Amino acid sequence: MENDKLYAIRHSLAHIMASAIQRIYGADKIKFGVGPVVENGFYYDIDMGDEKISPENFTKIEKEMRKIIAENQDFVRSEKTIDEAIEWAKSANQPYKVELLNDLKREGITVAKDLNADELGTITDGDAKVEKVSFYTNGDFTDLCRGPHVANTSEIPADAFKLARVAGAYWRGDEKNPMMTRIYGLAFASKQELEDFLAMQEEAKKRDHRKLGKELDLFCMSPLIGAGLPMFTPRGMIVRDAINDLVQGYRLRANYQKVWTPNIALLETYKTSGHFEKFPELMRFNSSESGDELALKPVSCPHHAQIYVSQPRSYRELPVKYLETATVYRDERKGELGGLSRVRAITQDDSHVFCTDEQVGDVFAELIESARELYKLLNMDLSLRLSFRDDGDGYIGDEKLWEKAQNSIREMADKFGMKYEIGMGEAAMYGPKMDFMARDAMGREWQLATVQLDYAQPERFALTYTDENGQEKRPVMVHCALVGSLERFMSIYIEHTAGKFPVWCAPEQLRVIKVKDDSEAVNALCDKIKTLANEHGVRVAIDDSNNSVGKKIRSAEMMKVPYSVVVGDKEAENGLLPLRIRNDLLADDTSDRAYKPEQLIQSIANEARGRVSKSSL
Amino acid sequence: MENDKLYAIRHSLAHIMASAIQRIYGADKIKFGVGPVVENGFYYDIDMGDEKISPENFTKIEKEMRKIIAENQDFVRSEKTIDEAIEWAKSANQPYKVELLNDLKREGITVAKDLNADELGTITDGDAKVEKVSFYTNGDFTDLCRGPHVANTSEIPADAFKLARVAGAYWRGDEKNPMMTRIYGLAFASKQELEDFLAMQEEAKKRDHRKLGKELDLFCMSPLIGAGLPMFTPRGMIVRDAINDLVQGYRLRANYQKVWTPNIALLETYKTSGHFEKFPELMRFNSSESGDELALKPVSCPHHAQIYVSQPRSYRELPVKYLETATVYRDERKGELGGLSRVRAITQDDSHVFCTDEQVGDVFAELIESARELYKLLNMDLSLRLSFRDDGDGYIGDEKLWEKAQNSIREMADKFGMKYEIGMGEAAMYGPKMDFMARDAMGREWQLATVQLDYAQPERFALTYTDENGQEKRPVMVHCALVGSLERFMSIYIEHTAGKFPVWCAPEQLRVIKVKDDSEAVNALCDKIKTLANEHGVRVAIDDSNNSVGKKIRSAEMMKVPYSVVVGDKEAENGLLPLRIRNDLLADDTSDRAYKPEQLIQSIANEARGRVSKSSL
Repeated sequence: MENDKLYAIRHSLAHIMASAIQRIYGADKIKFGVGPVVENGFYYDIDMGDEKISPENFTKIEKEMRKIIAENQDFVRSEKTIDEAIEWAKSANQPYKVELLNDLKREGITVAKDLNADELGTITDGDAKVEKVSFYTNGDFTDLCRGPHVANTSEIPADAFKLARVAGAYWRGDEKNPMMTRIYGLAFASKQELEDFLAMQEEAKKRDHRKLGKELDLFCMSPLIGAGLPMFTPRGMIVRDAINDLVQGYRLRANYQKVWTPNIALLETYKTSGHFEKFPELMRFNSSESGDELALKPVSCPHHAQIYVSQPRSYRELPVKYLETATVYRDERKGELGGLSRVRAITQDDSHVFCTDEQVGDVFAELIESARELYKLLNMDLSLRLSFRDDGDGYIGDEKLWEKAQNSIREMADKFGMKYEIGMGEAAMYGPKMDFMARDAMGREWQLATVQLDYAQPERFALTYTDENGQEKRPVMVHCALVGSLERFMSIYIEHTAGKFPVWCAPEQLRVIKVKDDSEAVNALCDKIKTLANEHGVRVAIDDSNNSVGKKIRSAEMMKVPYSVVVGDKEAENGLLPLRIRNDLLADDTSDRAYKPEQLIQSIANEARGRVSKSSL
Repeated sequence: MENDKLYAIRHSLAHIMASAIQRIYGADKIKFGVGPVVENGFYYDIDMGDEKISPENFTKIEKEMRKIIAENQDFVRSEKTIDEAIEWAKSANQPYKVELLNDLKREGITVAKDLNADELGTITDGDAKVEKVSFYTNGDFTDLCRGPHVANTSEIPADAFKLARVAGAYWRGDEKNPMMTRIYGLAFASKQELEDFLAMQEEAKKRDHRKLGKELDLFCMSPLIGAGLPMFTPRGMIVRDAINDLVQGYRLRANYQKVWTPNIALLETYKTSGHFEKFPELMRFNSSESGDELALKPVSCPHHAQIYVSQPRSYRELPVKYLETATVYRDERKGELGGLSRVRAITQDDSHVFCTDEQVGDVFAELIESARELYKLLNMDLSLRLSFRDDGDGYIGDEKLWEKAQNSIREMADKFGMKYEIGMGEAAMYGPKMDFMARDAMGREWQLATVQLDYAQPERFALTYTDENGQEKRPVMVHCALVGSLERFMSIYIEHTAGKFPVWCAPEQLRVIKVKDDSEAVNALCDKIKTLANEHGVRVAIDDSNNSVGKKIRSAEMMKVPYSVVVGDKEAENGLLPLRIRNDLLADDTSDRAYKPEQLIQSIANEARGRVSKSSL
């Protein structure tokens, strides 16, 4: 069936429903608003007076509608001048129609912006003054209407419509106006199409991602965090990561390069780009209609606490351990900002453990072990500071819990046999910390890894779990970051290594210096190296610029590339690559070594994976 | 040497430097401010009148200082009442000292909050009224000072200090006051310590992460984006990712689970956690001291444009392709928010290509191919809409460039032989788009992948590259997302799959249902499966709750886990695992299959890696 015909059927069914309701509830009680066609059907807004319509009444109304259809009524169009129309509406006791017609008379068609234009029986289009309006009559029901309609109700399939739901709607969408009863109907060209639609609707309800998201524990919402700010639970994060890896994969395959940019910028940026001019209302978070007072995330622990409370927790699940590399924001003073050392967008390698008192020791032990292993790999000496509270203000939580927490941290440090100092007044707001101080190549000490015990936030966020005996208990929170802020750590690590990154994190692991006047054999060897490198995940770059070999070698040294090879005709002939090794990676003082490409790439790949800082080549 | 002694040496050197400057430049011209001890040395703020001091004068001043030290002058302490002190300062023509003493007389010690307290020769501590002040005299130089100092200049090693640098500093840090000359000196207990410090400083300068960050192209700043908001370039991102992977690895090893949370929340969240109370000033971005007007990132293209301009670009580098899975923010109306479909924190699988006109075709071709491959894998039909501008407002950029861009998009669509419709008025603000419409299992169409051509933003951000002839040219930008928003895509994909995720993205790929009364053999088999699964990257969970086997099977079905096995004594005995397969993954209608653990895990791992949606088991 063509769209115009279906439109006429749906439009006619709105009139037929109105007519049926008038027959059932009596013409004097019922006052009509407007009844337009919508997606999949129609509705009519009706002032029902004292009467109430609910889905239980639908069968009766549908039955009356089918009776009207069976009466083979003609839809008859007629015209009236606007004054005649007003007179008609008054005599028919239809105040809403009177209002519409008066507005139409006074202001022309523009008055109807809040309405479906088809609902106004205007003859003149545009902004011109309205002279005449049209009416459609079927049986004893007449309505102001521009049409179109079916010629006769017999054209309407009586088994392809269904009343769907009832809702309240302010007259003309204005909450100062009376509340009307809006009755929605579904209507299709055939019974089969209606049934297909209903089945699809049923299926859609089952698949609703909000329902499944909760059932399958994929994401959660929190009224505390705010509307429109879903959080991804561990199960949901796996799906999200898998999809992200998949779609990033297509781009990485096409040599896209990853970058990272912070979540805030001067407004001037978006004035320059033109986005602010176009979407100012989407960028004004704290003047939003909702009046929500929002904050940029300065820490992630409250968010993680909200994921924890999104499901009931049993002692069997504990410890619950969340991990998020999360960017947080601090409005540091402008004068104190510099390079990566102090920034406004801070990316923490954050994690939070929710556990029982008894589990705290194991959780700490695990994190202490990780910190020791990590800083050994990073070639930095580690010492320990127990950061306790002083008598000052600015701490939250019960004093007894503080004492308990500080004692248990001291016990753990003793147990691990690590030398420590105690930093009074260095505690976090919510609890004592174990801070790891790392010494860099310049002898400077930095506070990097931190493990923090927190009895205060579980109280504030009312976190609970059910213990073995079915009792509700309060878990403990352990906060931990191994490098703290990625930005600050990189500022330290760049200086610690003087930019001579170990192979596992070197941006470019191997540079191929192609001799300028290259032959086909040289090109083939370079291609072979590149292919091998890609297969083994070795980051390679080929310098095929017009510069001299000497300049190319200096450039590779300047960029502190760990390994480089010069490829010319001689290498293409004998298939051996003489390797230049960055001096800090040289195990002995000779760099006069040559490798077959397969050997070389395999060695570099092993070294990168093994994360050793000394060359194994 | 103990710290107190070194402090006294540094403090005494400040006086000796002041005395030397007085000798060289004449007592009448020179007016002294304050001269405290700082890290590694000291400084003195001096009003030099018409004279200028620069590093060229340091040798002369140092020579005079050594002369004073060689004179074996005693540091002699004396006291004056505050009125006597004021008289002294007036007669010595030292207006800054007069000011300090007057403030001290009027307001007590609190006046000195902007000063180093040691610089005020007050006898009384705290807020009490000051009665007497102390002075120190060495040779012919007398200064208001609380001390302590060395007893005699002979205690000061003459070869362990060095003037370091000169800077301007407002008197008492207030820019309304006169600018003083601040001369910094380094001072240590021995020549060796000074030399070590200077060598370390030299080394630190070389290693400065800001210098290396620029040289090695690791990160960049932009005055447009704002202070304290570094952006990571492709090379820096590799280091950052490598470090993040490393530190996340330790946590993943300890069974931490990844989560994701948005960067904004209701302020109430941080009132509850207590952070707002403690750090309100760090969370008020738009009322910051700097007066910066900041915005939450609504799109990432301007950031990527700033990374592009952070280095000069040659045609040899083009196309430059950036990739960032970036969360952006839109203040959508609260009433329109729902589940993951419409959110305020939107994570885009975003990418931007900066290329020449001639490269646009290849860039588009590559992206179209990826979109087709992706949606085939996702089992969704794809159709194409060319989104062009209409005559409306709200577009930026030159009309001729728009025409050119729209024509080239139409040509590419024709070239690819894809059926398309044209959506007039569907273009982005900055250029036409190629939108891919994906049809889900419910027959609904969604606009997901999009490739957008942009001649406008390269103009606005003044992007350039140097062409083959050394001419400056304007690159084109191509914006692309393959799934658009991860949140919105997940809302569609959850409904498309009805939560029956294919194995590659299933949160749990295999569930082991342990029979309740387990024997040691059953436990061993379960452990073996878990170990094998971890080794192969298969996501496994063991259900060892107290529920019945029937209830456990239903729970695995409810959570739509693709594969599950029941492990009891029988399985432990024969080592075969009877597999239950989720019905949509069944290639045939029998699920009565048994596997050895190694086979099973290997099959699941292969399937996950292969990203096939049909079971290969």
